[in-house]
Amino acid sequence: MDELSRMCIHTVTTKPWDIETSIDEYARAGAGGITVWRDALQGRSIADVRRRVADAGLSIVSTCRGGFFPSVEPSKRQAALAENREVIAEAAELGAPLVVLVCGADPKQSLDDSRAQIVDAIAELAPEAERAGVKLAIEPLHPMYADAKSAINTMKSANDAAERIGSSAVGVAVDVYHIWWDPDLEKEIARCGELGKIFAFHVCDWRVPTRDFLLDRGLMGEGCIDIPKIRGRVEQAGFNGFVEVEIFSTEYWSGDQSEFLGRIVEAFKMHV
Amino acid sequence: MDELSRMCIHTVTTKPWDIETSIDEYARAGAGGITVWRDALQGRSIADVRRRVADAGLSIVSTCRGGFFPSVEPSKRQAALAENREVIAEAAELGAPLVVLVCGADPKQSLDDSRAQIVDAIAELAPEAERAGVKLAIEPLHPMYADAKSAINTMKSANDAAERIGSSAVGVAVDVYHIWWDPDLEKEIARCGELGKIFAFHVCDWRVPTRDFLLDRGLMGEGCIDIPKIRGRVEQAGFNGFVEVEIFSTEYWSGDQSEFLGRIVEAFKMHV
Repeated sequence: MDELSRMCIHTVTTKPWDIETSIDEYARAGAGGITVWRDALQGRSIADVRRRVADAGLSIVSTCRGGFFPSVEPSKRQAALAENREVIAEAAELGAPLVVLVCGADPKQSLDDSRAQIVDAIAELAPEAERAGVKLAIEPLHPMYADAKSAINTMKSANDAAERIGSSAVGVAVDVYHIWWDPDLEKEIARCGELGKIFAFHVCDWRVPTRDFLLDRGLMGEGCIDIPKIRGRVEQAGFNGFVEVEIFSTEYWSGDQSEFLGRIVEAFKMHV
Repeated sequence: MDELSRMCIHTVTTKPWDIETSIDEYARAGAGGITVWRDALQGRSIADVRRRVADAGLSIVSTCRGGFFPSVEPSKRQAALAENREVIAEAAELGAPLVVLVCGADPKQSLDDSRAQIVDAIAELAPEAERAGVKLAIEPLHPMYADAKSAINTMKSANDAAERIGSSAVGVAVDVYHIWWDPDLEKEIARCGELGKIFAFHVCDWRVPTRDFLLDRGLMGEGCIDIPKIRGRVEQAGFNGFVEVEIFSTEYWSGDQSEFLGRIVEAFKMHV
């Protein structure tokens, strides 16, 4: 099988492009899949986007993103549940088999409280996701995002949450950027595989130094993450889905996106 | 006992002050202890500093910092050992009972390799530290520093390393900034206490949002860390030493340091 056919690109990676351009260019570059960030759907007919992706020969891998469940305020937790129902419905309409969850955290309460609210919310959504034929992937986020983006910060926490929820629709998204530093990584990736819960695999790189908390992700190979090693572990644990390129970078977004896409393809062949 | 007598301040916290001013002002503010960053000793007689601290009625709690052990290059690892021998000798001369270790990491090799080199280096230094009457504290650093500052990023890793080295001179420095997000925190603080290895306790706060990877630490109470809860766990685990205020902040360093010290005292009483 052609290696590139396993490559999926997130629309946010080439954020300056509209979704039509992204679809056409990813397909032309030889990618097999696309993950659609919801902002890229703004003002579009979802049925049109779905058709265009299919016509281009791409698979829709997932949508990004649901989540942001916890809050000290019950009304905000209810609003988050309602929004996540819409996200699930939208994914189903788009033909996306998976929604990635950035679970959220509220710095006004303890991480334990946020974690409990996350588990409760996903457990409530799971039957709905099952009925819609859409899976939900809990993405552990780097501990530097524990204040306000996610209270789930390790593979172990994500595995624990998914196991506790106990739905076949709920698993884990493994992103090298968030988990490469973890001394328990090997063990917890293996455990996630045994649970049948590795639902997605995202790559980029950790720049040395990293200059921004959010928007300075590196192209694969220009940082310190041993991506092939982590990919090997994920695949040894049974994962055989798409390898998704998800790069937030003000530096790359400010340049020519066609050239950037060319570099992504080369980096994918060399360093993933 | 007066609460403030348990307070220790790191010289780096009031970086614009020279060490003489820091000693006098910390004592005047009612602090009981001082931790000396090595750069503050530049051009000073160590004996003079030791005397001045004693005359001011302060205890020297530790020096910061040794470490930075791992490297792909054996010659650099040897140089690090030699420098750390000097750090230990300097601490003994200063009358500091403890050296805090920022263990280091080399992004050119795996974290496993860096971790093994850290354990080897500290094990080699431990007998020397024992003879000098100086203890060594492994400080787990936040995972956002795993690229180049420390391959020890959790209390569990620090406990594992200290336990494996097995010297009474080697323990752990607990800094809320680095470990507040950890879901295993309660368990690993308790374990560290059972091992008799809680050698230091550092406080500051995690700002939401944090604007810089290094120099945007918050004053206690202005971030999202539940410092009293973590302090409670540390003390329940048997620690009864100084509570050390260690804040790196371009914002606070740019202001009036006397006023900043006043705010530290208030924050210590209210939020620690």
